[in-house]
Amino acid sequence: MNDHPAPGTASGTAFGRAVSGGVLPPLCAPLTEDGELDAASLERLCGFLLEAGVDGLFVNGSTGELAYHTDAFKLDALRVVRHVAGGSVPVLAGAVDMTTHRVIAQARAAQEAGADGVVATVPFYSPTHPGEMADHFRAVRAAVDLPLWAYDIPGNVQRKLPAAVAAELADDGVLAGLKDSSGDLEELRTLLDLTAAGGARERGFTVLTGSETMADTALALGADGIVPGLGNIDPHGYLALHRAARRGDLPAAAREQARLRRLYALTRVGDPARVGAYSSGIGAFKEALRRRGVIATATTPLPMRPLTDEERAEVGRHLAEAGLGPYRAA
Amino acid sequence: MNDHPAPGTASGTAFGRAVSGGVLPPLCAPLTEDGELDAASLERLCGFLLEAGVDGLFVNGSTGELAYHTDAFKLDALRVVRHVAGGSVPVLAGAVDMTTHRVIAQARAAQEAGADGVVATVPFYSPTHPGEMADHFRAVRAAVDLPLWAYDIPGNVQRKLPAAVAAELADDGVLAGLKDSSGDLEELRTLLDLTAAGGARERGFTVLTGSETMADTALALGADGIVPGLGNIDPHGYLALHRAARRGDLPAAAREQARLRRLYALTRVGDPARVGAYSSGIGAFKEALRRRGVIATATTPLPMRPLTDEERAEVGRHLAEAGLGPYRAA
Amino acid sequence: MNDHPAPGTASGTAFGRAVSGGVLPPLCAPLTEDGELDAASLERLCGFLLEAGVDGLFVNGSTGELAYHTDAFKLDALRVVRHVAGGSVPVLAGAVDMTTHRVIAQARAAQEAGADGVVATVPFYSPTHPGEMADHFRAVRAAVDLPLWAYDIPGNVQRKLPAAVAAELADDGVLAGLKDSSGDLEELRTLLDLTAAGGARERGFTVLTGSETMADTALALGADGIVPGLGNIDPHGYLALHRAARRGDLPAAAREQARLRRLYALTRVGDPARVGAYSSGIGAFKEALRRRGVIATATTPLPMRPLTDEERAEVGRHLAEAGLGPYRAA
Amino acid sequence: MNDHPAPGTASGTAFGRAVSGGVLPPLCAPLTEDGELDAASLERLCGFLLEAGVDGLFVNGSTGELAYHTDAFKLDALRVVRHVAGGSVPVLAGAVDMTTHRVIAQARAAQEAGADGVVATVPFYSPTHPGEMADHFRAVRAAVDLPLWAYDIPGNVQRKLPAAVAAELADDGVLAGLKDSSGDLEELRTLLDLTAAGGARERGFTVLTGSETMADTALALGADGIVPGLGNIDPHGYLALHRAARRGDLPAAAREQARLRRLYALTRVGDPARVGAYSSGIGAFKEALRRRGVIATATTPLPMRPLTDEERAEVGRHLAEAGLGPYRAA
Repeated sequence: MNDHPAPGTASGTAFGRAVSGGVLPPLCAPLTEDGELDAASLERLCGFLLEAGVDGLFVNGSTGELAYHTDAFKLDALRVVRHVAGGSVPVLAGAVDMTTHRVIAQARAAQEAGADGVVATVPFYSPTHPGEMADHFRAVRAAVDLPLWAYDIPGNVQRKLPAAVAAELADDGVLAGLKDSSGDLEELRTLLDLTAAGGARERGFTVLTGSETMADTALALGADGIVPGLGNIDPHGYLALHRAARRGDLPAAAREQARLRRLYALTRVGDPARVGAYSSGIGAFKEALRRRGVIATATTPLPMRPLTDEERAEVGRHLAEAGLGPYRAA
Repeated sequence: MNDHPAPGTASGTAFGRAVSGGVLPPLCAPLTEDGELDAASLERLCGFLLEAGVDGLFVNGSTGELAYHTDAFKLDALRVVRHVAGGSVPVLAGAVDMTTHRVIAQARAAQEAGADGVVATVPFYSPTHPGEMADHFRAVRAAVDLPLWAYDIPGNVQRKLPAAVAAELADDGVLAGLKDSSGDLEELRTLLDLTAAGGARERGFTVLTGSETMADTALALGADGIVPGLGNIDPHGYLALHRAARRGDLPAAAREQARLRRLYALTRVGDPARVGAYSSGIGAFKEALRRRGVIATATTPLPMRPLTDEERAEVGRHLAEAGLGPYRAA
Repeated sequence: MNDHPAPGTASGTAFGRAVSGGVLPPLCAPLTEDGELDAASLERLCGFLLEAGVDGLFVNGSTGELAYHTDAFKLDALRVVRHVAGGSVPVLAGAVDMTTHRVIAQARAAQEAGADGVVATVPFYSPTHPGEMADHFRAVRAAVDLPLWAYDIPGNVQRKLPAAVAAELADDGVLAGLKDSSGDLEELRTLLDLTAAGGARERGFTVLTGSETMADTALALGADGIVPGLGNIDPHGYLALHRAARRGDLPAAAREQARLRRLYALTRVGDPARVGAYSSGIGAFKEALRRRGVIATATTPLPMRPLTDEERAEVGRHLAEAGLGPYRAA
Repeated sequence: MNDHPAPGTASGTAFGRAVSGGVLPPLCAPLTEDGELDAASLERLCGFLLEAGVDGLFVNGSTGELAYHTDAFKLDALRVVRHVAGGSVPVLAGAVDMTTHRVIAQARAAQEAGADGVVATVPFYSPTHPGEMADHFRAVRAAVDLPLWAYDIPGNVQRKLPAAVAAELADDGVLAGLKDSSGDLEELRTLLDLTAAGGARERGFTVLTGSETMADTALALGADGIVPGLGNIDPHGYLALHRAARRGDLPAAAREQARLRRLYALTRVGDPARVGAYSSGIGAFKEALRRRGVIATATTPLPMRPLTDEERAEVGRHLAEAGLGPYRAA
């Protein structure tokens, strides 16, 4: 954070906490060997990222194992992050659950714990009409006194938030922004078009991409920021990518993206005949953070199966190729 | 319940609560006009069903709006149901959440509140390997001192519990039974084959179908019982169907099923251009219960949109065609 | 065929060729080692099935590799089958292609080659509205002077023929029948309900199931006949199953079905890490026919990869378990 | 075409026909009111596009109704196009059918009719292993003496050609290029990465996008050319977009793309409650060409339902907004 934020970075408003773009890693959730929250490691992770210069922190996202922990665990994690951030950068908190009342309960707790914004998906489990998706976000927004972000992640919640619905909610001031983890760049572009045409973009509606591997493209299309899981491991890479994109140097952004695309292969070390995609990806992120000296263990929560020793060694090789060694706190 | 339960009905064991089949309606969740739990209506609904002679009650299932209410709400509902049942029939309670730790928390609370069994799905939100699904059920079972039921509902949780995995868990005594809401009768048959071959069926592994419209077929294939949402409205119909199937009179079961298939059309009164499938189905169930005098309002939870007056009138016409008038408590 | 056909079997009408049910195997397409049509083997296959007593023959279905051969090849196959059948049983011919004009071309050629009926799917490749599906069947029916059968196989053509559309076409006399390879027994039942209510069933609209493994259930629901790929290998089994179902002996039908379900495991001998599902299933059918002495080679067409020697040996073990030895022509 | 082709356009080689990028519209298939090929309109369409300066013509693609016409029709269309092109630009011809033998038959006929390259999809209808997809392309390539293009269109053929398989075929010289109609820009980028790393890109492996609405992004990622259905109606727009991208002026390309994105809305004039997506899109393209005076009628083939008069008027409004009036031949 600096005194004169450029457009498209987390701005130093009176509240010091509004998000207008930049790099906001979705924090991993470090665990002790017993599977409890490892607060010391989480503090170290936050410190690592803040020193690198990230523009905000997103806690209790999908990378943060939102599906795997109790509400109490997640609230503890938020408190740790809030404490370390200390107002220096905004802290967004996931409030992801099946439908409205459950999301509201999480969002209110997050507000009390000091979140600067909450991030919620469309309803899942039961089929929901797009009009009901809109009602859902309206009800959540009305229940909390915090900026509300839509989290578009149809691969996990089965249904996409249509760009037209998101734009309507942006125009009405219900949504402060949207995190796009859909992988659908065409719909992302439609959302950017619609929210520009309707004036929401001008009034601060912010669009973030959750993609690790197409982040430069999303920024070139007009997205404001990046929420990359891989940014836990290599925040400097994503910050360099974002800076290059902001100054209009797309070839430099693409070169950095190419490097990060190669590094991202570490998420595929887990054998799909033995583990689910999250066990491989989250397990690899945690092993990489452990090897870099940021967190203490690579423990993953039930029912994720741990990576094998050989798979962990392969994570190490990916780090070595990318030139990522141990982190030394400033 | 009687003193000498036939095979394939809820048995009067020493605990008075083991489930071995029959008709176990998944209870609707009556709400006040403010959207709070309407305990009086829920008591009346339980009474209506128990008088009809159902073999058990399933609370906090999909029909019971499990996705729409907080843990506290669902625990309250379970307590009401437990109180009315009073040990006369077993009470199964949904413990449905995204992954293991969250399910365990719900399952333990359900145990404390007096549930006779808990019902859990495979993990959802994040992709999970079948082996991890097995680990999930093993961990939940180890955490509670209650029979554990698998709830196979891939339309809602994206992934099917493979019959081979369910059978392995049945053989190992992890699962007491399975409720099949997959609509996949071929896999149901494979599960019945595998659990017969492995001996689990003989040791009491129970298979229930969640289908309102193919219940007679599931019973003919060997399923033990039915968990029909429509059984809230017409328990006598499903009990007649089940009795006919049990005595081997498949044509009589098919005739009753045909009648219930026609009645089931009431779940489609909602305009799909305006509401999601659950808003239509749950809304219609509640309106039917209201018209039958069982519950006080047809209120549905956020973000479900209510049925229109005309759609409600159509529910009434379906009831009239089926000859279902107001219920008079004994 | 006999002089007094029972309801629900291929009837000896004036034309000797109307299909009203029974067992109609979808013929495999025997190939020479060079991949050409092996007419002698196809004749032997037809003879084997006719001696067993099948009620009709279906040539150029999915089991007959309709997707893998040219129109000329398929017409040759039809001519061979027509010649062997000699009017003793009806011969249905697949006329499956992407849309109307292409289907009409195939259907007309099939008519000239002496088919007793043609079987067509809904359009595929491009998205099609259900109303356009209806137009498609109407146009095909208008172009040929033969009974037209709908072939509902959404797994292969991406879209299901809705039961309501099929019923409308049945009521209007456009469709003579439907072959259901959807695996969706609920929709099959809806179709049976609708065509009974509309009178089409009474006027001869015939429903066949393509399921090898749920055939008894489909018959119990009211289907008239079976088109089982596995019926190439074990026609006697399916004929016994069908006879038991027709005389109302469902337990006997279920026992035969259980035996055939075990045998059906031979379709899964191919390693999914190396071959597609058709390579495994078709390859196993052909290997089984070769081992039974019915066809000369187990050659499959491009781009199917052949089974390995070990996989072929496993086919042999399945046959041995089922007690299926070499066939001796009468 | 000029004497000194820049990289990334159709080059004037000794054969005058190699494709190395640029704009290659997938030609619409003009029909007479009776549904026959309207050769005069097709000639006029080719002339319109060649005058505009397109780099090649693609006949019998999805926009060209490949699924809707007989092989004979499609061969006639190819001959007309080949005649008008007269060697001035390369002519690619679709050889799309369910599997290898059928594709080979089409590809050989296309070769005889003078195509400069053939374009084929992965097998469809039956499930196919990726290794079998590779075998398929190898067999087709071996059967014709023409460059072979992969056509990746999973929305129509259910299965994606994995980037790794396409890259292997590129490295081995089996594929001359790939047309990406998958909408998956991430996989497109992976393909570009892999074929650059393997040397195929350097040896001339060409990547085209079939996207009308993300063409600038695909070019920015490194694609060589565009095959836009909307390019039938507004070739000048796509040529301007391509030129801007080639000279590195991405903002100018994006502005042109934004204009074309608005125009593309004409493909959505058809009411989805009445017509399939192709009926709307193809119908609108043809109506636009008719209004521009390029083709004589907007007739679409069976079973596509025609647009209503009101929907056609809306096409006219889209053209007017885009400033696209009648075409006057030079």
